Amino acid sequence: MTPFVVPADARSWIEVAPDSDFPIQNLPFAVAVHKGRGEGMVCAIGDFALDLPVLMEAGLLDEEEFPWLDGFFGLDKDSLSALRKRIFDLLVDSSSELKDNAKLRKTAILDRKSLVLTVPIPPTSFIDFYSGIEHASNVGKMFRPDMAPLLPNYRHLPVGYNGRSSSVVASETKIIRPKGQTKGADDEMPTYGPTKEMDFELEMGFYIAEGNEMGKRINCKAAEEHILGMVIVNDWSARDIQRWEYQPLGPFLSKSFATSVSPWLVTMDALEPFRIEGMEQDPEVLPHLRRQGQQHFDIALEVYLNGEKICESNTKHLYWSMSQQIAHQTSNGTPIEFGDLYASGTISGPEPGSYGSMLELTWRGAKPLDLAGGGSRTFLEDGDVLTMSAFAQGLGFRIGFGECSGEIVPAVN
Amino acid sequence: MTPFVVPADARSWIEVAPDSDFPIQNLPFAVAVHKGRGEGMVCAIGDFALDLPVLMEAGLLDEEEFPWLDGFFGLDKDSLSALRKRIFDLLVDSSSELKDNAKLRKTAILDRKSLVLTVPIPPTSFIDFYSGIEHASNVGKMFRPDMAPLLPNYRHLPVGYNGRSSSVVASETKIIRPKGQTKGADDEMPTYGPTKEMDFELEMGFYIAEGNEMGKRINCKAAEEHILGMVIVNDWSARDIQRWEYQPLGPFLSKSFATSVSPWLVTMDALEPFRIEGMEQDPEVLPHLRRQGQQHFDIALEVYLNGEKICESNTKHLYWSMSQQIAHQTSNGTPIEFGDLYASGTISGPEPGSYGSMLELTWRGAKPLDLAGGGSRTFLEDGDVLTMSAFAQGLGFRIGFGECSGEIVPAVN
Repeated sequence: MTPFVVPADARSWIEVAPDSDFPIQNLPFAVAVHKGRGEGMVCAIGDFALDLPVLMEAGLLDEEEFPWLDGFFGLDKDSLSALRKRIFDLLVDSSSELKDNAKLRKTAILDRKSLVLTVPIPPTSFIDFYSGIEHASNVGKMFRPDMAPLLPNYRHLPVGYNGRSSSVVASETKIIRPKGQTKGADDEMPTYGPTKEMDFELEMGFYIAEGNEMGKRINCKAAEEHILGMVIVNDWSARDIQRWEYQPLGPFLSKSFATSVSPWLVTMDALEPFRIEGMEQDPEVLPHLRRQGQQHFDIALEVYLNGEKICESNTKHLYWSMSQQIAHQTSNGTPIEFGDLYASGTISGPEPGSYGSMLELTWRGAKPLDLAGGGSRTFLEDGDVLTMSAFAQGLGFRIGFGECSGEIVPAVN
Repeated sequence: MTPFVVPADARSWIEVAPDSDFPIQNLPFAVAVHKGRGEGMVCAIGDFALDLPVLMEAGLLDEEEFPWLDGFFGLDKDSLSALRKRIFDLLVDSSSELKDNAKLRKTAILDRKSLVLTVPIPPTSFIDFYSGIEHASNVGKMFRPDMAPLLPNYRHLPVGYNGRSSSVVASETKIIRPKGQTKGADDEMPTYGPTKEMDFELEMGFYIAEGNEMGKRINCKAAEEHILGMVIVNDWSARDIQRWEYQPLGPFLSKSFATSVSPWLVTMDALEPFRIEGMEQDPEVLPHLRRQGQQHFDIALEVYLNGEKICESNTKHLYWSMSQQIAHQTSNGTPIEFGDLYASGTISGPEPGSYGSMLELTWRGAKPLDLAGGGSRTFLEDGDVLTMSAFAQGLGFRIGFGECSGEIVPAVN
């Protein structure tokens, strides 16, 4: 299906601030928890959100075309695109169907700030890639100082691993400092207790719409047809637990305690104007992983610690595209499924101010981060609030993702 | 709840061969696919299986006590135990309720060989441990010959990683040889094609019944209350893909193409008489991982390649118990859930004839395995049928798991 791209000069009869994340060109979806009547889909416009089940009840959305608006489950990519097109038709300034129904506007248009939003889709599986080449290089420099920063496989395949789906939580869920086993280099025995190296990882993620049959791979050209939309992902990490546990089978409990995702699923249609070529891949990758056209995106990323900006990065620093990740994941016949969540890996830029984790920002704790508000940090402390934002900007509007936020609370006794 | 252990001298009015996997002391459950009426639970007895929805329809199982017999979903450990007790009451030789109902016997007692059985529970998550210490030692000797065979963390925590749940398949599902990226040590560039090092891994697994609240750990003493039952697991592996991809984040596509599980879920109640202390743990592990009583089991394991026995092992070679694995997994607050599948890692014994993978049996291909039927193998070939069996034996009966089997079929073009 052709993507539905809203014209750059389109405006809504609902006023939207010029720097809003949610102009009529965006129209992302989320799942809200409504007191007394369960969960339902909402669509963001400026400071407001449309309550989709209410619009359906009023007859403004076709019950046969969109039979299920409690959440994303059952919506394929085409029906989500059609739903977004219909909402555009209701919101564009030339439209009067909703605009002139004062009574319906009262119940169908919600204050966005008042919403309680869940994880867009509780993921069937969570897979975390390692496609931020600057991050992978930094980790290599820190942990393998005598070797080339990147391992030999890095430029030949998108390195990734399976994460834990049961602990994927909504933005604003409090993050309990995890306990775990750690061992200092000079300690004779390990100990068990709260992590002393609580970290974040700045990532972007995407949800799978339609999967593949087991045994049949998805090629790089067709891969994007399987993406429902994108979200911000914070892959919380406990570095001291990770250091002790990760050999030889990879990170496990250092990551599984919590992963936060932003609530608004931004569609690929909305991101269409922000396609870019992506960085050059050298050496050329094998044919089944070769990019087809512009499969990267120009999305600005920011991280705030207690309100102070500590990082500015961009998805253009990803070596591997989402399409390549899907092509790789299915290259051995693995079935992917509706609701699978794939994350990019930490997206650091080349300069220190663009590093996407405390590990890199403080260079393993060697260069504490001085905060403008006073104090400094090597890793995150209890009470710290870490917030990520993401947006594609240009053509007179911004396609924003809102925020992905979490406060660290003390370990449980 | 006290486990329901069937007395060793109990007999059923259904005749059961002395060496059957399924005497009245066992009574494991599976999910059968019935032509025309969907899926339903069955319970094995000798060469037969009881059709549980048919027994319910006939009024022999209480609809209020067991409301859902299409599959395991919704059954907690206590209700599964109660269901097994009720079936024992129907099958024990002193019982006449079913025995004397000739008409019902015709529809409720099925020929076990005629059944098409599925994966007991399509797993919510699949986690693979590495608790077979002989296997971990062998891998260390092969891949890190200049170092101690076990990494420093091995005896302090049960090393594990997240696997792929979407490709967990039922026994007898054909296993398509996966393609993947590999690179020989002397090759300049990697290539993409069918694996040349197709392997099996002999493992046992268990399903989670009731989970924990996020943030709250399960202690080692209480852990077994969360286990619904056990199955055999074959963690198919492509060694050449694994070698190239696994650094630094662990195995990914070398494992995710398929994992086979045996259909019969054997309850912990049935295994109760086969508890053992397990091997000594030295150094003593941290308090939260310390074993409480006999939390290991004496289960004999066998592997057959095209009908020829190539391995005899036993779960007593596991360094870490299932309870310790659960205590570790939740020690950072990770929520575990109904339907999670946990596998042990490859269970090799100390002698070559007890090695649980081709990698070890042929010592990385250096010592090809001569087959009595002619020919030899380094790794598995297309057309090979690999079958695992498991049973606890003693007290005049056998608690068997049936088989976990799979045939390798050629890669898809």
